[in-house]
Amino acid sequence: MKKAPSESTSGKAIRCKAALCRKAGEALVIEEIEVAPPKACEVRIKILCTSLCHSDITCWKMNGSFPRIFGHEAFGVVESVGENVEEVKEGDYVIPFFLADCQECVDCNSEKSNMCSQFPIDLKPGMPRDGTSRFRTLNGEVIYDFLAVSSFAEYTVVDISHVVKVSSEIAVDKACLLSCGVASGVGAAWKVAGVHKGATVAIFGLGTVGLAVAEGARLCGASKVIGVDLNPNKFEIGKKLGLTDFINPKECGGRSVSEVIKELTNGGADYCFECIGLASLMDEAFKSSRQGCGKTVILGVEMHGAPLSISTAELLRGKSIIGTLFGGIKGKSDIPLLVKRYLDKELHLDEFITHEVDFQDINKAFDLLLQGKSLRCTIWLDK
Amino acid sequence: MKKAPSESTSGKAIRCKAALCRKAGEALVIEEIEVAPPKACEVRIKILCTSLCHSDITCWKMNGSFPRIFGHEAFGVVESVGENVEEVKEGDYVIPFFLADCQECVDCNSEKSNMCSQFPIDLKPGMPRDGTSRFRTLNGEVIYDFLAVSSFAEYTVVDISHVVKVSSEIAVDKACLLSCGVASGVGAAWKVAGVHKGATVAIFGLGTVGLAVAEGARLCGASKVIGVDLNPNKFEIGKKLGLTDFINPKECGGRSVSEVIKELTNGGADYCFECIGLASLMDEAFKSSRQGCGKTVILGVEMHGAPLSISTAELLRGKSIIGTLFGGIKGKSDIPLLVKRYLDKELHLDEFITHEVDFQDINKAFDLLLQGKSLRCTIWLDK
Repeated sequence: MKKAPSESTSGKAIRCKAALCRKAGEALVIEEIEVAPPKACEVRIKILCTSLCHSDITCWKMNGSFPRIFGHEAFGVVESVGENVEEVKEGDYVIPFFLADCQECVDCNSEKSNMCSQFPIDLKPGMPRDGTSRFRTLNGEVIYDFLAVSSFAEYTVVDISHVVKVSSEIAVDKACLLSCGVASGVGAAWKVAGVHKGATVAIFGLGTVGLAVAEGARLCGASKVIGVDLNPNKFEIGKKLGLTDFINPKECGGRSVSEVIKELTNGGADYCFECIGLASLMDEAFKSSRQGCGKTVILGVEMHGAPLSISTAELLRGKSIIGTLFGGIKGKSDIPLLVKRYLDKELHLDEFITHEVDFQDINKAFDLLLQGKSLRCTIWLDK
Repeated sequence: MKKAPSESTSGKAIRCKAALCRKAGEALVIEEIEVAPPKACEVRIKILCTSLCHSDITCWKMNGSFPRIFGHEAFGVVESVGENVEEVKEGDYVIPFFLADCQECVDCNSEKSNMCSQFPIDLKPGMPRDGTSRFRTLNGEVIYDFLAVSSFAEYTVVDISHVVKVSSEIAVDKACLLSCGVASGVGAAWKVAGVHKGATVAIFGLGTVGLAVAEGARLCGASKVIGVDLNPNKFEIGKKLGLTDFINPKECGGRSVSEVIKELTNGGADYCFECIGLASLMDEAFKSSRQGCGKTVILGVEMHGAPLSISTAELLRGKSIIGTLFGGIKGKSDIPLLVKRYLDKELHLDEFITHEVDFQDINKAFDLLLQGKSLRCTIWLDK
């Protein structure tokens, strides 16, 4: 009788393929590696599908610790668990996520915060509890992990605070999207802004995150959802995801985008979202928000490290600015809710998948995103 | 039989005394003036007590329309009402307030906004509905009004959207404080920040508004309320109003105020308030707020018109900044609640009155505030 994989591998290192980045900005190389068994409070996951997010690209370009396994949007099945793990077991379908939800610290126990203070987010590699890696080359060289997930590998090890069990009914590739980008956008509208029924919304930047904000605003019952992007093709896909209006900054007839938005919304949008990462655009979003209660949500990581500079006179008129990572999503409680809304046919996910590749072609996913051709390109590890 | 004043004056101009500012920054002059009867939707009020707020001083120093009657913190009794006024009647005790609450526009009907969009705040003079003044010199010269209140006069005319009837049980001088400064500070903690039980709070600047924030935080059940001020005497009065800790920026041993606050609060205060009006201090307040859900509330009007510049990387970690006028207070509904809390001995007001003068000595009130000697100096018009 053939043994279940878990019985044959549990407690042992697993040899499998991973896409290694050996130098900043260079094409990934698929290599055979060794993945150690999970330590206490850790879970070893067989990755079924992963997808490429802009944050992978950003860190792939930067100097850092190499060789490294990128990837932080994924879906998989638990292969084995370490000591003290009771929440998931072998065979469970799980979504790993980059922002810890330890469920023990003051932040994880607060409804207002999703920034775990026991395991704060860190771009430096190392497992949350002991700072070491579970990956080695066959020569014994350390391979560094990334954002607590490292999903560009057939197997990975994730801390229990970074993983949640979800329904097995959801399609593998759709589930993968809820691991970061789409969840962040939907969460920003739903949890951070708290978009109200009938609200007006303006979204700066219509990549996956910006379009997911539109989808979130649609789910919240917004009456007008304005997208701002230099690429007019984004309006077509955006219409399926809640977008009702589109502004191309190049075609505003000499007016600023905020002037056009104020006209479209009778004084300013109730909620504005910046999804690019440019301080000047954050200020334009702020200017586009209405007096009295206009809220501007910043999702974009400022790409030049520039500070945000805004008018205090405008701010005093009841405006606010809030920043967020992961759209206020708490992985353990919110991701299963999003899975349910997808299965209930409320939340759209299919539209975000514009391309798919097999694992050996992972560099194509990089090319597509770098060329601005894809929203999400899913990468199949077990098809 | 002696007629009640209202019967003898209703519908006619009233001659009375007012403290006129004839030139920016010059001492006020008490003169006999004429106050026209209220037009439709207006109320003529006999001012019983008024007090001096920093905004009066700011605008008194600026070039503008003169002669002008400043003053916007007051308490009085209705002398007569114009057409279409049903909400108040002769003899009612009322608090006028500078930020309209028309109860008709989308903002006045929203729980999220206190910025009336029918009658937006305007430093330019003129009654809200027709832009003209109700004040004349005895030579017929126009005297300009200020912030819809103009309370440095024995009688004034106020639009119905700027006045609320309150219980006659409250002492005249205490009621006057709820017209602007103290209400703004208490409201900022209660309505804008929504300080939660057990929260940590840091307040930059311990003038009347800053101390009122402390009082509001105390009422909300904050566990730690840190005051930041260069004047150590502020701590003594602040202790009666909720302050638990004090930081003098000059005595931080080379550390920044935000470093000290982070140490006192285990990582940053839940709520920070800037009550001075300096962009650099707003940034320091922002830095002092905790990751995950730290909220910084800006109450100070930036005195040099400088923009606020903050780190986007810090913002993304779940921090927010919100600006407010009048501390989110809606005059019609919230001021009566504050009156009730004072009468119920929950809200402290008496501590804010450090000086009082008769109307003819109004310039002493200016001197005291300019020298930083007073919190609130009440000015009695009918003692």
